[in-house]
Amino acid sequence: MTDTEQPIVTAGVVVIGDEILSGRTRDTNSGTIAAFLTEHGIDLREVRVVPDDEPMIVEAVRALSGRYTYVFTCGGIGPTHDDITADAVAKAFEVGIDHDPRVVAILKKRYENDSLTEARMRMARIPAGADLIDNPVSGAPGFRLGNVHVLAGVPKIMQAMLDSVAAMIVGGAIVHSVTIECPVGEGLVGGPLAELQRQHPDVSIGSYPVFNDRPAGTRLVVRSRDAVALQAAAEAVAALVAHLTIEHAPKG
Amino acid sequence: MTDTEQPIVTAGVVVIGDEILSGRTRDTNSGTIAAFLTEHGIDLREVRVVPDDEPMIVEAVRALSGRYTYVFTCGGIGPTHDDITADAVAKAFEVGIDHDPRVVAILKKRYENDSLTEARMRMARIPAGADLIDNPVSGAPGFRLGNVHVLAGVPKIMQAMLDSVAAMIVGGAIVHSVTIECPVGEGLVGGPLAELQRQHPDVSIGSYPVFNDRPAGTRLVVRSRDAVALQAAAEAVAALVAHLTIEHAPKG
Repeated sequence: MTDTEQPIVTAGVVVIGDEILSGRTRDTNSGTIAAFLTEHGIDLREVRVVPDDEPMIVEAVRALSGRYTYVFTCGGIGPTHDDITADAVAKAFEVGIDHDPRVVAILKKRYENDSLTEARMRMARIPAGADLIDNPVSGAPGFRLGNVHVLAGVPKIMQAMLDSVAAMIVGGAIVHSVTIECPVGEGLVGGPLAELQRQHPDVSIGSYPVFNDRPAGTRLVVRSRDAVALQAAAEAVAALVAHLTIEHAPKG
Repeated sequence: MTDTEQPIVTAGVVVIGDEILSGRTRDTNSGTIAAFLTEHGIDLREVRVVPDDEPMIVEAVRALSGRYTYVFTCGGIGPTHDDITADAVAKAFEVGIDHDPRVVAILKKRYENDSLTEARMRMARIPAGADLIDNPVSGAPGFRLGNVHVLAGVPKIMQAMLDSVAAMIVGGAIVHSVTIECPVGEGLVGGPLAELQRQHPDVSIGSYPVFNDRPAGTRLVVRSRDAVALQAAAEAVAALVAHLTIEHAPKG
């Protein structure tokens, strides 16, 4: 699947929060992280959304940490009692957790003496051995423990931490894509498209119905790390679409 | 946690599609299903997003099917080669899969003779023993096998199938919630709020920072199936917020 010797770099995401699972808050962070990973040539293989429940966070972090190159979590690192991600990640790695002097220093600078409440000090709880992830928006940092990157849940802060993470990870070969709009529906393009996928095993061909009030065509996306294979497959798909467009044009 | 004898009904969701994991398409279906389940008193406990990859779909469906009352999948039941959900669900349950005469009849009515292509006939592939889920939008149905409900990925079709599912499931006691806007930040409300959570173990108190350009307060959400416990906890939270509002009001 690749024309380089770069290994495939993979990732998993754990989104943490009761408010996502109740439908009250829509998760946008996993989509933001997905786009970030694609830009860095990293294959996002799995996302899990779990509640503010320590055993479930521990299980998800362990499962994904063992399976993928990188893991990203978002949510649950604020100052309130329902923010339990740091403790859960410490438990997942079986390391201790305590107030981290590096973070205490950041918080002391940000909050004047009596405004550095016990609740805010919770944000200084960092698992032993973790690296900090800079938070230029609101101060309290995220952290990286092993291959797990622990980010905030507020989208603006999550995005800022992700910018900080960019310098901490090694990406892979970029997956290039060609998108071809097909004016006929999936039911007509599906058969010959499956044959093209068989003929071009080094690319992945995705088919997405364009569906507003009624089916209005198909968006075909050809993806590959191999630029030569991508070009050949995209040309074959474009030729198929041209053929189908003529075949199914209104006759008069 | 409940004032009735109704058992807790739980659910898991599996979102299927490479296009979600690449960040190209934003998943809105899991949020729609989450809100639907909350309306029916069902606790959504976990969402997994997996690629168009049979072993990963099989693993996710098996894991969630064994753990929760209901499972909902969305995506991957169209007519093209990358639609592999029906086969994966059949494999997860170790049952056969073939053209289902009930679905063939639906498709024959919808598509005239030569437009019922081999690709469209793929949508008639239903695992043995499954019940159909009506699709009033585009015809080709979803299905239910065991406790797993297999829905389309196009949001409009997914929503229509979800309406059909409503009559096929038994909900639970509704979780009621009270939302209280707090004008001070999480760092100030966090300490006393944790104490209130300890005093009111039959409710769950969530704290969500209201964060636009800078922190602008906290949204506190008290949730419970127990109306009496909810009322008592919500009053205590409201009293705390009133106290903090006065304490931190601008003085002059």
